[in-house]
Amino acid sequence: MTRFLSLSAVSALALAAVLPASQARADEGMWTFDNFPEELMEKEYGWAPDQAWLDRVQASAVRLTGGCSASFVSDAGLILTNHHCVASCLFDNSKDGQDYLNDGYIADKRDLELKCPGQQAEVVTKITDVTGDVKAAMGTLTGEALTKARDAKIADIESAGCTDTATTRCQVVTLFGGGQYKLYTYRKYSDVRLVWAPEDRAATFGGDPDNFNFPRYSLDASFLRAYENGKPVKTPNHLKWNPRAPKEGEVTFVVGNPGSTSRLYTSSQIAFEREVRLPITIATMSELRGRVIRAMEESPEHAREGLDLLNGIENSLKVYLGRQKALNDPGFTAALVAKEDELKAKSAGNAAIGDPWASVDEATTAYRALYLPYRFLSPSSDLFSYAETLVYAAQERAKPNAERLPGYTDSALPLTKKRLLDEAPVYNWLDELRLEWSLSKAREYLGVDDADSKLLLGKESPEQLAKRLVEGSKLADPAYRQQLWDGGLAAIEASDDPMIQYALKLAPRQRELQKQVDEVYSGPLAVAGGKLADARFAAYGDTLYPDATFTLRISYGKVEGWVERGQQVPIATTLGGTFDRATGNPPFDVAPAFAANKDKIDPAVTYDFVTTNDIIGGNSGSPVIDKAGTVIGAAFDGNINSLGGNYGYDGSVNRTVVVSTAAVQEALETIYPAPALVKELAGK
Amino acid sequence: MTRFLSLSAVSALALAAVLPASQARADEGMWTFDNFPEELMEKEYGWAPDQAWLDRVQASAVRLTGGCSASFVSDAGLILTNHHCVASCLFDNSKDGQDYLNDGYIADKRDLELKCPGQQAEVVTKITDVTGDVKAAMGTLTGEALTKARDAKIADIESAGCTDTATTRCQVVTLFGGGQYKLYTYRKYSDVRLVWAPEDRAATFGGDPDNFNFPRYSLDASFLRAYENGKPVKTPNHLKWNPRAPKEGEVTFVVGNPGSTSRLYTSSQIAFEREVRLPITIATMSELRGRVIRAMEESPEHAREGLDLLNGIENSLKVYLGRQKALNDPGFTAALVAKEDELKAKSAGNAAIGDPWASVDEATTAYRALYLPYRFLSPSSDLFSYAETLVYAAQERAKPNAERLPGYTDSALPLTKKRLLDEAPVYNWLDELRLEWSLSKAREYLGVDDADSKLLLGKESPEQLAKRLVEGSKLADPAYRQQLWDGGLAAIEASDDPMIQYALKLAPRQRELQKQVDEVYSGPLAVAGGKLADARFAAYGDTLYPDATFTLRISYGKVEGWVERGQQVPIATTLGGTFDRATGNPPFDVAPAFAANKDKIDPAVTYDFVTTNDIIGGNSGSPVIDKAGTVIGAAFDGNINSLGGNYGYDGSVNRTVVVSTAAVQEALETIYPAPALVKELAGK
Repeated sequence: MTRFLSLSAVSALALAAVLPASQARADEGMWTFDNFPEELMEKEYGWAPDQAWLDRVQASAVRLTGGCSASFVSDAGLILTNHHCVASCLFDNSKDGQDYLNDGYIADKRDLELKCPGQQAEVVTKITDVTGDVKAAMGTLTGEALTKARDAKIADIESAGCTDTATTRCQVVTLFGGGQYKLYTYRKYSDVRLVWAPEDRAATFGGDPDNFNFPRYSLDASFLRAYENGKPVKTPNHLKWNPRAPKEGEVTFVVGNPGSTSRLYTSSQIAFEREVRLPITIATMSELRGRVIRAMEESPEHAREGLDLLNGIENSLKVYLGRQKALNDPGFTAALVAKEDELKAKSAGNAAIGDPWASVDEATTAYRALYLPYRFLSPSSDLFSYAETLVYAAQERAKPNAERLPGYTDSALPLTKKRLLDEAPVYNWLDELRLEWSLSKAREYLGVDDADSKLLLGKESPEQLAKRLVEGSKLADPAYRQQLWDGGLAAIEASDDPMIQYALKLAPRQRELQKQVDEVYSGPLAVAGGKLADARFAAYGDTLYPDATFTLRISYGKVEGWVERGQQVPIATTLGGTFDRATGNPPFDVAPAFAANKDKIDPAVTYDFVTTNDIIGGNSGSPVIDKAGTVIGAAFDGNINSLGGNYGYDGSVNRTVVVSTAAVQEALETIYPAPALVKELAGK
Repeated sequence: MTRFLSLSAVSALALAAVLPASQARADEGMWTFDNFPEELMEKEYGWAPDQAWLDRVQASAVRLTGGCSASFVSDAGLILTNHHCVASCLFDNSKDGQDYLNDGYIADKRDLELKCPGQQAEVVTKITDVTGDVKAAMGTLTGEALTKARDAKIADIESAGCTDTATTRCQVVTLFGGGQYKLYTYRKYSDVRLVWAPEDRAATFGGDPDNFNFPRYSLDASFLRAYENGKPVKTPNHLKWNPRAPKEGEVTFVVGNPGSTSRLYTSSQIAFEREVRLPITIATMSELRGRVIRAMEESPEHAREGLDLLNGIENSLKVYLGRQKALNDPGFTAALVAKEDELKAKSAGNAAIGDPWASVDEATTAYRALYLPYRFLSPSSDLFSYAETLVYAAQERAKPNAERLPGYTDSALPLTKKRLLDEAPVYNWLDELRLEWSLSKAREYLGVDDADSKLLLGKESPEQLAKRLVEGSKLADPAYRQQLWDGGLAAIEASDDPMIQYALKLAPRQRELQKQVDEVYSGPLAVAGGKLADARFAAYGDTLYPDATFTLRISYGKVEGWVERGQQVPIATTLGGTFDRATGNPPFDVAPAFAANKDKIDPAVTYDFVTTNDIIGGNSGSPVIDKAGTVIGAAFDGNINSLGGNYGYDGSVNRTVVVSTAAVQEALETIYPAPALVKELAGK
């Protein structure tokens, strides 16, 4: 008795999806930990967590720099997250005929736990308001001068805040589009290893067709472990593992790092999304999807090596299609306009606020003229990214900290360097495919005779250039990257690596475009964003949540189904339901270990469930926590109605999709047995 | 000195692209031959053609059923059209290691001229107004009953009009969305052969990047010949070949068959395009593009066999992207709304007209709910098309003529049958690729648990089903298709061909959907369309042109460049310019015969040129005719600003792109020598 959505249903639903009034309504909100709305929740639920509860949870919440969320669930650094958050790790560790992504991985002993390239775990230890300092540095400056002064001050604050960059990380976060600046201090763990992951088919049962849908049958869970000096770290602050089924209506919290939302966008920013960014993104990404799908059909190697990229493309594409659908819905956009009009009316006559909307209009118009070259002048390729990072790092490291670009300041460099130097496989055929696609799209959108198009291609075709650069490059070798990193600008400029030469050639124009974008867009937006935030606080008080910024947030909600096209969607699925839904054919083929253990699996165990929590991409892997503060699941998806959530939340249909700890427990005991892990989770 | 457009330039231009007033302005209009606006043209140009001129031109104008336009240019059935209109013919004739698409083809003798599968040439001989008859049959009926009555009357009229279906074809055309019904009678020639075509690289120099751009260096011309009873037909009515350069500002006519425009759409139809049809079309077609591009890189055979499909996809996609850009431009759509508001204001209080806009709104809303299954229930595949045609033909032929579906009436059957039975290659890998893509997109948009999705796939995956159907089908063999055609429904139902079985399985649901669409959409639109046409005639008089319907039209205009981003675009290019633009790399590599004959080619000869004529897809191959009635070129493209032309024409920037007869003459004499053809064109 499963029910899924076709996209035709979304339009009618989306009509009700946005608030005409600007205050958060029931269950809406990705709240910062220093501004949790106790009163609001108390009013709605008759209960709210106290500061001790919040502090304990915050100390257990983990951000994964790969783009996910997670939590500590034992005192020995054990981390619960999603399978799709470790897919790249499984993928990168698969060599010599191994295919951990396909087969899953269970480390029977700690010394078999697998290092995850580029992955770092971070825990917030302090949040400090630095709004006054940053705004003072900006003063009455404008344009690029303003962004330079702001970034210099931020570099200073971060540098001063974290002198020990081996174990701490400082990051100044811009909230409310410039209304607040907060320094987040993290304890960081740069050695993260894989402990347990089920088969890919168990985690992604239903594949792209089922993605963002519910009912769902997905074991999208895995465990990592944080290490330091070669040993598991001690984590006395962790969540208690509670492998029980959720109860309908019970309160749930999702604690994690929602990546990005655009709920505070003005009309002209929304128009830019709808008219420019989304159409280009969807058309070009769909073509890439097609190229990768076909290439993966060419051989089992291609199928294996392309899977991680394809999953990423299809997931993103579904998000963008959902956003496009929301913004193409006149009812949805009318509600956004009503919200903006309300704020304008409430701000009328307030001279301190003025007309930031007009400033945003002007900045967005200016940005439109720069957008195509700005977008297409950094081709898509792993090897090119390495080259670009090496070139920029060499150029930026020669400058004083306060004058460097944001990714290359003292506080940012360690992670940039780790990502550059960690060993990860590059598949030349796949990198060439991406680069060829990206160059051909640049030419298509910029035009053949455009100067930037000529800078990118010269007289070569996208096919030739991609082949020459990828096949001629030695950057897949981490030792060579290390050598160029250590050698600095002299070594870079002396390198005959064609990808390095290419990155060197593009850098001046990229910098020029960045300067222009800062001058006409980022600078004016920073000022206008501050004014808009002032307007919101003046109109609605300070119980507001900022747009998501991949920083720690807490959402409260409850276990609840919803009504879809007149039918009630239940709150949860069971493990046994998997076998009913299976067709025997991909992506609806039961995972081998599920099939092999069918008789042993308790079919009644709760598998996946839904809650009203307000989350978005980046929240993947977030612990779902009950009133008692114990973990009862890991959020891994939203339903189809959540896709417009980038612009607005509607508690009547917007749902978080969670894999239950009950299902994970059953898997650990019966399907992918890991007795040591079961014991550790039980705190024994 | 070439200049191309990047799409970033289109937005600003499009702001001015639509008329706020509804009467045609200078050079706008795809006029029917029975309503040429002599007075309007006389006023603008001080001259207009007389009836004899129009009659002579009409008698020389050819429609190619493959979707192009053309003209007779000798008394022996010689036809001028575009290279891209014969690409499929070159492609279909390439066997046994031959690659006529790549190499070009010159028939030194008439008996070497190559039959073009599925191609038919048609010349309008009479246009009869049957509006009264059709409207009388519709009476006060509504919904599906109305469409049935209308289609039955049309079948009757067509059947009565053309008793000799071997040499004539009758087609009732709906104009002004239901305001007029006209019977077009054609002299038809169902044996069309290829005489001359240059190398593909000469015709498509610049490839997709240069498509819809100007300046241009494309020899997009070819010659066909009409045969009857194995002999060239006599065509005393033909245009005089005039291989001269165009003069700036001179009057030009384009005579051909524009395929389809939507300039009379109401706001809700435009909204449907912008919000539903275009986004789905662009995302899915982009993915197909990616699949085909990658598959073509797999081997030289794939590169050759996939080219024709890829060219078609990329051409259509560029059109759809241009339309999306126009409809995402608030200025553009505001102008459309203003036009509609003006008509509403002029019609206010006219009880005979009522509120057809509300009827269209209602019908379009109802259509939205049916659109996804209606769109996706006919999978994309050559073999499936054969199967579908066989199944429908067998079922429909058993009914009286007046009760059959439009494509299967007595008047339509001969062409349907010809297209089915003509021999044309099917490449299984490519057909399977398309079918797999099409089935997977159906599942994506309909949803996994949708009943239609289940009907399409059963328990199979798109990959498996496509493979089973394509590999198991014998329909690529024309003899087998003939056998099933001859055997009728009994043979079809007895066939174990999996594709036939599949088409039989889908047909009932397809018919049910068609019935629903007729009931809630097509029926109401036919009535509302008639009322809207009445409103327009009442408001603006009868000097109006209907939306394009792939029937014969004439457009007047002049040779003129335009201003693009502040720079004047010249009217023409020269053959010599090709060598300046060439990079040596695809698609900017000079065709081998151009390179080989570089020293002999006169670099000063006019190559391609632009005019203000109002055309659209379907006009490809249309003769460009001067005041004297001689042909000076063949239209083959529009500029980038013409892409919004589906919804509105702006004479200041909308241009037709033409290959000059001067360039074709030089090619016939020097690059792809065809002395007999030169003589024939000279009338010797």
